[in-house]
Parts: sequence; C-alpha cells; structure tokens
Amino acid sequence: MDLIHPGERLDDLQIKGYRILQDPTAFCFGMDAVLLSGFVRLRPKCRVIDLCTGNGVIPLLLAAKTDAEHIEGLEIQPKMADMASRSVELNGLEGRVHITTGDVKEASALFGASSFDAVTVNPPYMTGGTGLVNPSQAKAVARHEILCTLEDVVRESSRLLVPGGRFFMVHRPFRLTEIICLMHDWRLEPKRIRFVHSFEGQEPAMVLVEGIRGANTGVKVERPLVIYDAKDVYSKDVREIYGK
Amino acid sequence: MDLIHPGERLDDLQIKGYRILQDPTAFCFGMDAVLLSGFVRLRPKCRVIDLCTGNGVIPLLLAAKTDAEHIEGLEIQPKMADMASRSVELNGLEGRVHITTGDVKEASALFGASSFDAVTVNPPYMTGGTGLVNPSQAKAVARHEILCTLEDVVRESSRLLVPGGRFFMVHRPFRLTEIICLMHDWRLEPKRIRFVHSFEGQEPAMVLVEGIRGANTGVKVERPLVIYDAKDVYSKDVREIYGK
Repeated sequence: MDLIHPGERLDDLQIKGYRILQDPTAFCFGMDAVLLSGFVRLRPKCRVIDLCTGNGVIPLLLAAKTDAEHIEGLEIQPKMADMASRSVELNGLEGRVHITTGDVKEASALFGASSFDAVTVNPPYMTGGTGLVNPSQAKAVARHEILCTLEDVVRESSRLLVPGGRFFMVHRPFRLTEIICLMHDWRLEPKRIRFVHSFEGQEPAMVLVEGIRGANTGVKVERPLVIYDAKDVYSKDVREIYGK
Repeated sequence: MDLIHPGERLDDLQIKGYRILQDPTAFCFGMDAVLLSGFVRLRPKCRVIDLCTGNGVIPLLLAAKTDAEHIEGLEIQPKMADMASRSVELNGLEGRVHITTGDVKEASALFGASSFDAVTVNPPYMTGGTGLVNPSQAKAVARHEILCTLEDVVRESSRLLVPGGRFFMVHRPFRLTEIICLMHDWRLEPKRIRFVHSFEGQEPAMVLVEGIRGANTGVKVERPLVIYDAKDVYSKDVREIYGK
C-alpha cells in the first residue's frame, strides 16, 4: 500500500523525526496545534483522545512529547481520518496511536462514558453563521461549526472523561464567555487559562484552556504566551515547545 | 462643620487638584480604583452609580475624568459613607456627586430599576470563607464577601442599568469563571476584558471587565495593561490613566 497519495505532502513535524501527511487543498496544521500540545499536562501512562483531530497532528505531537499509553484521534471526514491513519503508520506509531472515523457529537456513545483521562481539541473557531465560509468543504468543516458546535465538543468531552480527568482546548479569545460558561455548565471546570499573543503588548490571538472534570471553581490565568520576539524570530517559550 | 475628622488623612488624588479623605485604619484606595476609572467608557452626560464605593474614590475620579451628569456612590458602612460625603464637599462636587448609605443587596429597590446608564464597582475580592479575614471590620468588609457576594453585585447592577447600559468591574483573575458566568446569567454580557500585570510577562494581578446589559455574546480581550516598566517606574499606560 502506498502511504502517500497523489496531491499529498509529507512534512517534517520537527520533533523526534516524526512526519505528517498534509493535503494543501484541505487544512494544514498551524501554530494552534503546536501550542496546544505544549499546554497539555498529562498524568503518567494515561489514555488521551483528540477530538476533531483532522490530519492527526495533535495525536502525533502527543506521541512525541508525552508517555501517554494510548492516544485516540477522532475525525468525522473519512478522507482526513484515512490520511491521519497513514501518518500514524509512517511513523510506526500503530501501537500507541489510533484514528477513528466518527462524529464528535456521538463520541461518548462510541467510546463509552469515563473512558479517557484527558481530552484535547482544536475545534472549529467560527460559529456556523459568521465569517466567510470556506469554499473548500474540508477547510470549512475545520474552521466553522458546521458539523459540531462548541457545546457538542464540551458536552462529549465531559462525558468521555473520568472524574478529575483533564480537558485541553485551543480557541479564539472572542469566544471566551461561551467557552467558560459551557465548561462550567458541563462540569469541566476551567482551572488554567493562557492567552497567546503574536507579539508582546498585542491583544491575544488565541486562548488555551484547561478544565478538570468535577473540580471546584477557581482559575489560574497564566502569564501571556508570546509567539514572536521579532518578525520571524520565535520567542524562548515557543522554541521550548518545539523542543529547541 | 469640620470636614476633616481626627485620625483622617487628606490625600491628593493627583487629578484636577482633587483631594480625598482616608482613614488609614480602614481601607485606603489603591491602584485598582485608579485602573477601573481609566477603563470606564461612558456615553456623554450619563448617570453612573458606583457600588461598594468605600471612601468614594471612584466617584471622585469619575467626576474628574468624565462629563457624567450625576454620579452616585453607594456604601453600606455609615462611617465610610460619611467620610466620602465630606470628600465630595471638600472638592465642591455636591452638584454632581452624591453618596448614599445603603446596602448593595437592595440597590435596585433603593434607586429603582433601569435608573442608571452605567455601574462601576470594585467589590470585595475574597469569598467569605477564604483568605485571612482582616481583624479591622472596615477592612474586612472591603476585602471579603461578608456583606455582599459577587452575585449580589452582578444581579443588582443588571437591575440598576437601562438596556444597553454598561457595567465596569475590577476583580481578581482567579474569580474569572464566576465573574463571566454570573454576568452572562444576569444578562450583563461581558464585552471587554483587560488583564492587569504588575510587570510584563508576569501572570495578571487584576482583571477589568466591561459588560453591556442585554448584548449578544462575543468578547474582546484587550492587550495586557502593564503597571510598571521597572521597579517604581510606571508604564506609559498607567501614566496616561493618571493624566501625566
């Protein structure tokens, strides 16, 4: 079987020599996924699931960075899920990483309640009706809440997690109220928030949130994460996330 | 009548020559009040109420910085309210600023629903049961939710405001989830958030929040507000708030 299909590109993940298949006409992973993987804190030997996994970049990064025993990736688009599976194989990670084709709205029914110690997710940022819907269907699904809403993601994450289990999400700051209210309502209590700024002194471009299932209220807002020290020069924080 | 009572200190507010009475054994205003007054954005000629006003520092700062037509201050401790009233008189602001002795829990009954265009508040930060309760009763009431809770403040603010009216609060980041959930639940939708950092690159020490009564969800997280450029050297942002 040829693991690289026509039109696909094999990119270097810049960690442990891992590589990832990407379809330039669909959705390519960005800084969001890398920062989320750097924000995640896992207990030893745990079971993690990455929702809306796309081409599987987060499962691959978690396989490189953590000692997670099992990493599941759930992706609704069969073509993307197939590409993610082939990336897993290309890196010889079939023993730890598995990709499932399925709908995040039914994730807890698919895998069972309380079946994971941690959930990661880089969901579509835009609500169904806002922003320019991308003419490419694969890109549109990745960016807009066409196939799932923020509440679907939070609800299923809460159900998938054991009590005390951890939820890690990257999102856009303008959705912060919805993020916090939904997490609180679904008992994924926000415990740690970090805003991501392109440059120091700018408004944040992204937000990283950790919730703990069933925890008490009370959140730590961490120091800002700044991406660039200067144009094209990554900050020390980002270089550390890249392991450099 | 002697406007300055024994044990009181008359401090310079460093704006328009205004002065303020403080009781060093009670609660003296801090950076929080100054930053809140700099965060407030009012429509022309509006009616504002400052809840938990203490010695009236925020009404005095708003009188100096804005063209608000009427500024009310509500304070539950009679001694503090009396001192605040005398500061108003000392600055000759009786025409625009008025202090009422009363309970924030009954504010909307006292003043009537939809009776203000804007609410400001620098409430007690600590929940009743946490932190060391201050042995001085006046300080304890200012710092701990002894006489009112965050929900009392948010609920009464929502009732006091006209539709589209604005709510401005300074608080501690560890309460962010409660702040956002209560504001959303009471239809004071969070629209603008700014974190305050003592020094650049540190975690935030305070958070400023603006809500608009009845607005749609969607919040702007502004660039960080940094207080010090170096030890004892205020940043440009803070110097601007002080009008220097």
